[in-house]
Amino acid sequence: MPLQISDLSNAVLHTHYAVRGPIVARAQELENLGREIIYCNIGNPQALGQKPLTYVRDVLALCEQPALLESAPHAFPEDVIEAARTILGQSKYGLGAYSESKGMRFVRKAIADFIAARDSTSGVMQASNPEHIYLTDGASKGVQTALRLLIASEKDGILIPIPQYPLYSATITLYGGRQIGYYLDEDSGWSLSEQMLEEAMHEAIKEGIRARAIVVINPGNPTGAVLTEENIEMVIRFAKRHNLAILADEVYQENIYKPGVRFLSFAHVMTKLSEHEVSLFSFHSTSKGFFGECGQRGGYMEVRNVPEEVIAQITKLQSVALCANLPGQVMTYLMVNPPKPADPSYKRYVEERSHILSELAQRAKILEEGLNRIPGIHCQPIQGAMYAYPSISLPAGKTDEEYCMALLEQTGVCVVPGTGFGQKPGTAHFRTTILPPTRQIEAVIDAVDAFQRQWG
Amino acid sequence: MPLQISDLSNAVLHTHYAVRGPIVARAQELENLGREIIYCNIGNPQALGQKPLTYVRDVLALCEQPALLESAPHAFPEDVIEAARTILGQSKYGLGAYSESKGMRFVRKAIADFIAARDSTSGVMQASNPEHIYLTDGASKGVQTALRLLIASEKDGILIPIPQYPLYSATITLYGGRQIGYYLDEDSGWSLSEQMLEEAMHEAIKEGIRARAIVVINPGNPTGAVLTEENIEMVIRFAKRHNLAILADEVYQENIYKPGVRFLSFAHVMTKLSEHEVSLFSFHSTSKGFFGECGQRGGYMEVRNVPEEVIAQITKLQSVALCANLPGQVMTYLMVNPPKPADPSYKRYVEERSHILSELAQRAKILEEGLNRIPGIHCQPIQGAMYAYPSISLPAGKTDEEYCMALLEQTGVCVVPGTGFGQKPGTAHFRTTILPPTRQIEAVIDAVDAFQRQWG
Repeated sequence: MPLQISDLSNAVLHTHYAVRGPIVARAQELENLGREIIYCNIGNPQALGQKPLTYVRDVLALCEQPALLESAPHAFPEDVIEAARTILGQSKYGLGAYSESKGMRFVRKAIADFIAARDSTSGVMQASNPEHIYLTDGASKGVQTALRLLIASEKDGILIPIPQYPLYSATITLYGGRQIGYYLDEDSGWSLSEQMLEEAMHEAIKEGIRARAIVVINPGNPTGAVLTEENIEMVIRFAKRHNLAILADEVYQENIYKPGVRFLSFAHVMTKLSEHEVSLFSFHSTSKGFFGECGQRGGYMEVRNVPEEVIAQITKLQSVALCANLPGQVMTYLMVNPPKPADPSYKRYVEERSHILSELAQRAKILEEGLNRIPGIHCQPIQGAMYAYPSISLPAGKTDEEYCMALLEQTGVCVVPGTGFGQKPGTAHFRTTILPPTRQIEAVIDAVDAFQRQWG
Repeated sequence: MPLQISDLSNAVLHTHYAVRGPIVARAQELENLGREIIYCNIGNPQALGQKPLTYVRDVLALCEQPALLESAPHAFPEDVIEAARTILGQSKYGLGAYSESKGMRFVRKAIADFIAARDSTSGVMQASNPEHIYLTDGASKGVQTALRLLIASEKDGILIPIPQYPLYSATITLYGGRQIGYYLDEDSGWSLSEQMLEEAMHEAIKEGIRARAIVVINPGNPTGAVLTEENIEMVIRFAKRHNLAILADEVYQENIYKPGVRFLSFAHVMTKLSEHEVSLFSFHSTSKGFFGECGQRGGYMEVRNVPEEVIAQITKLQSVALCANLPGQVMTYLMVNPPKPADPSYKRYVEERSHILSELAQRAKILEEGLNRIPGIHCQPIQGAMYAYPSISLPAGKTDEEYCMALLEQTGVCVVPGTGFGQKPGTAHFRTTILPPTRQIEAVIDAVDAFQRQWG
């Protein structure tokens, strides 16, 4: 008899990943039938028209085919050629060989330098150890490795924000751990509150769950909030008090849109506090920021305050599937090591970066303001990341899943219901990206407006 | 307190992956101290001098930087440009966007056509369904998905060959399942015997293990054996009798070196037997064959005889980490869709392919014959794949791990002890790749010869 659904584990069956769930499947069906769909369900910038950076793709092309150094040298600026030569030289074998399990050392070294430079502000010197950095296929795979390490039994729990990015809930379920949800405070711009964290811990202890780690997504997905230094300090103290590791999902660190708002890494704040007792796993990716290179699956995980014998275990886990893809590793190198002001590619690089980031900031503003003009919809400030997560009023007895499905059917706008991310009982939300081109963002607002007035 | 080793699960701690274990770590240390090391531990062709195929890298470069179509069109043959245009058109967004969770549909369609053409011999028509094909980051990730699906409890066991490729043992341990080893028959060229399979099943049943699947690696890693049609038929009947799924690791399907030996896929033989009851997961990769593109992490899994509701579960699992990397997806497309005889790149492509495959065949022959000339060493015919797995005689009280470490220290030759792959009690082996250039292969044989005479 072939494999049956009844043969599968509950862990597999109960895993749920809403970003690609039934509403998206229906959107694809409608598109195949000829309907125009605006995909606002996923942070996939290049699928919505964002162009890759010329410098990055130039270097990648040369690394894929080094013979172009001879056959078409005039097609590339000098610094592109130099970068490709450096990468090919440092990698030893180009893009075709497995690298070390952790990833190519020169890439890890460049990441460590990037982290040190990013975090060494206000007189606090940072250091990052390349041997504690792992190149991963996108940040998702790094998160999965950290959770794999931390979930040692079915009594082990991970604190995750509500709302959260469903990678966390899905992976915790799949690995047989327990989710401990802590609410973000919508009314204060989705910040973390010590009281809500303690309440969540209290519940967990009551249920006999051994809390192992806390996940923080900053800038927030789906919330768009950027944490203050005080908020980060509070989380670190909380983690220390309860002997938790911290998983800091910082993939949107370049996506900051509001004047005066600044991204601070958990690593930075921990160093400032001279905190060496709390284990930290932080994640970054080439899929977000202004690269938006989701298809290339580049990313890294940095680990701090973890003993060497645990590092060896992480390395072993990474080695089983050999290594992260090398084009993604190279892209990560380029992300942390961009052209310098004197380089021929610099001007174009900066122009392209500024164009992308200012477009995103503009769309965030249009979306936030537009949504807040619609009766029954309230959207917190979109300070960063790539999403709005407005609350919506629903007719009695209706769910946000029904709302999003009806919105799709009637308007072709594809968003993800709040149920997929989590929300306080009695509230309803959807997540939309800020990624569609400005004219489409306006169309999304108009569509939601008309729909909400009639359905909501 | 930071995360401690005692916090980790036994599943993590007991996971063991010898191909990158302590001997390889020591080799890297020695290399850093200036010693010349010949790495025979891992099937990583381009790290040992194999060149990537010009056509493949040309297309990849154009896909990474489509602007080269304008700025350097003369650097590329016409069919390369056409292939890149097709890929960029079919992918819709190029390499920078997440694809569908299963992988880009045109790639899955091309794989289905490749499988149908490969297997439709001797009048048996094959069909392969693109919706049952998953693009994966190398074959490893596909294998892990299949095992994740099949191991539903700690009583679930997977039959694996002994010797095996340690991806299987490592992943089964990590996922909390049970290994059921079945011995391959060394004296008959590492073939599978029905008796040994039944003995393994018998043991498993006695221990209360629920056997879920059987893994077959064909051509064999580490054995180098290629299964006959009769052997494959026997496995299919065995799987049916015991209600097992089959995991067919067929990543070395292009690596056949002996005249008269032919690769037959499990899918082909199952179709010939009109077998629709046995679930089949088969795996292929761009890392082996004559591509040897390990760093690009391309590969696929094809699933047969599995109900649609289980397919939906696989798709869900794939969706959690979004999709396989797109350069790897494109490389997989090129593997299954090479230049045609009338195309301008065809001649060069065939020349490069023939050169690589004939070099590998020559090295397999030199290695097999050379090892068999050494007293105390016996090597079965290397019919395919990329390895020799000779038996070695050891001094009393010594292990093959000590042998391989001493061989490394004394000669700089890095091979992996049989313990890492499994072997019959009382026997000892090592695995070496056939990949080093011919003159290095000869140096390896001389080094092992001198070492064995003195140490063995």
